[in-house]
Amino acid sequence: MSHTSESSEGDLTKTGMALKHDREWDYELDRIVEAVEERDAEKVGLQFPEGLKRRGPAVTDDLRELLPDDVRVMLSGQPCYGACDLDTYMMRRTDVFVHFGHSPMKESEKIIYVPLFSNVDVEPILEDSVDELADPAENPDVGLVTTAQHMNKFEEMRGWLEDRGFDVHTRRGDERLTHEGQVLGCNYASADIDADQVLYVGGGKFHPLGLAMEHPDKKVVIADPVNNVVTVADTEKFLKQRYGAVHRAMDAEKWGVIFCTKIGQGRYDKAEAIVEENDNAYLITMDEVTPDRLRNFDMDAFVNTGCPRITTDDGPRFHKPMLTPGEYEIAVGNEPLETLEFDTFHGTW
Amino acid sequence: MSHTSESSEGDLTKTGMALKHDREWDYELDRIVEAVEERDAEKVGLQFPEGLKRRGPAVTDDLRELLPDDVRVMLSGQPCYGACDLDTYMMRRTDVFVHFGHSPMKESEKIIYVPLFSNVDVEPILEDSVDELADPAENPDVGLVTTAQHMNKFEEMRGWLEDRGFDVHTRRGDERLTHEGQVLGCNYASADIDADQVLYVGGGKFHPLGLAMEHPDKKVVIADPVNNVVTVADTEKFLKQRYGAVHRAMDAEKWGVIFCTKIGQGRYDKAEAIVEENDNAYLITMDEVTPDRLRNFDMDAFVNTGCPRITTDDGPRFHKPMLTPGEYEIAVGNEPLETLEFDTFHGTW
Repeated sequence: MSHTSESSEGDLTKTGMALKHDREWDYELDRIVEAVEERDAEKVGLQFPEGLKRRGPAVTDDLRELLPDDVRVMLSGQPCYGACDLDTYMMRRTDVFVHFGHSPMKESEKIIYVPLFSNVDVEPILEDSVDELADPAENPDVGLVTTAQHMNKFEEMRGWLEDRGFDVHTRRGDERLTHEGQVLGCNYASADIDADQVLYVGGGKFHPLGLAMEHPDKKVVIADPVNNVVTVADTEKFLKQRYGAVHRAMDAEKWGVIFCTKIGQGRYDKAEAIVEENDNAYLITMDEVTPDRLRNFDMDAFVNTGCPRITTDDGPRFHKPMLTPGEYEIAVGNEPLETLEFDTFHGTW
Repeated sequence: MSHTSESSEGDLTKTGMALKHDREWDYELDRIVEAVEERDAEKVGLQFPEGLKRRGPAVTDDLRELLPDDVRVMLSGQPCYGACDLDTYMMRRTDVFVHFGHSPMKESEKIIYVPLFSNVDVEPILEDSVDELADPAENPDVGLVTTAQHMNKFEEMRGWLEDRGFDVHTRRGDERLTHEGQVLGCNYASADIDADQVLYVGGGKFHPLGLAMEHPDKKVVIADPVNNVVTVADTEKFLKQRYGAVHRAMDAEKWGVIFCTKIGQGRYDKAEAIVEENDNAYLITMDEVTPDRLRNFDMDAFVNTGCPRITTDDGPRFHKPMLTPGEYEIAVGNEPLETLEFDTFHGTW
């Protein structure tokens, strides 16, 4: 995903990871120091998501104070957009590997996950969101979902809604998700609940858009505690963009089929199946899927089996149409246009 | 390295890898097919350097024609700038891994290297280059070096010069280089010969610049058979740029020390040594060293222990001064300014 300021709506700088407020984060240094002692570690690797990389040197300083002089602390310079996106090189070559800012996609003794919960107060935005929800006296059922960084306030949100007469429906999505009520940009299974409205508490527009696409029968109310606005998810613009991409790809002869090598983004079978049935499809493997990298290949269109957010959120930045696997099936005529849906990931790796 | 058209002088598109002439390359498909048969391979991975990635799909088509239907051919979408820059993910996960366009940095049963020699005629440019060389009757000694893609014409070059009365001095550099007379952007040991002039036959300005920096006592004549020009290497502009970068870094407090994770570019000991002696230095690990990635870190200057070409050729594109390890020692006052030299790599990995 882009980290420039001209980026599109799903820009990570608007998901609450950007430090608009001067927040105090709990880096859980004690837990890291303890692991170093236990393992008699010589090398400690730290991986931060894009919006928090700037904090890396200060965290390194604090750790150096607490650790013996001969312990080497290093920062991952690889882009990082989720727990699907572990720096596996660093993981293999350090004794203690710490991944900040995301909840575990898969537990492993090799990895210390430090969630970095937001301390933004959620009550004011819940208060505002009530206007967009049905009157609980008439329709009390509401689904509740949020992102990893507001998970620490989840019970508070639930209690607040229940106090106002709502019947709050929540569930844990699938094994890709750590927490009850958690959504990812590629997984909205936690909203598979018995209610025709869902309240999403969190920043950014990408998650609620995916939510609305995955659950077209539900009204998705967005309570953004970081930018302090309540809106209702609208999939129309998004659908238009996707239909446009599919239409532009319909004349494509040569297809580049991207298999993403990131640990939690690999869908080799999907990529393989396309290449197997289409003689004009070429399998391309890479970790970061960027416009520059794809410009090197003389293709008419691309299918991305990696992160769906790159396809849909960054799509317009690529020189050729970039489709999800499902959209590819529509573009080549295997499926009707009405089957267009949001691309999601299930399971871990 | 950049692959945009506004790039600096060392742009790879001017080294003869760009297809200005419609060349015929020998992809050595028979050798690949043979390896597939021998190993009963199911997956074949192909890696091309940037300037040749566009040829990947056509080579894939040709291979598919020759191979059984169930053999899957895949293209590496990772950037590639040398034999130091193998796609190790692809190498580990394919049964046959082919690296095109570079000569072996290290022989391995896992890797088939296909050199892709240029078929540009070198005689016309040798003819022109004589004007810049000393009269062989007075000073017959001349060193001869070239890049991997013109290696197939090396004996022809030598013979041509000898026929005109030159005493041609050549040597194989060190184990980083495959061929007698070969230079890399990071290794000019093949020019350690007993002559005060060296003829470089090849494209681009980066290699002869490195050559002239490494051998300041020698006149370096550049015979470029691709762009059809003869020039003499001039290090003045380059030195000015490097002195500028060093000066701008002299006030730096926080240093980012980059350890490059690419298989043939790792100099961990150099990176480690800097971080060990400087409390304001932070070790950052990454594969591609790009301006975008470094902008995420709040540093005053960077030291790159990876590819020297990124430091010097792409240097101006970074938001903060980017130095070689030797330049860092000057900037922090450990070494005098006169020690500034070209950063080179020796050995394999």
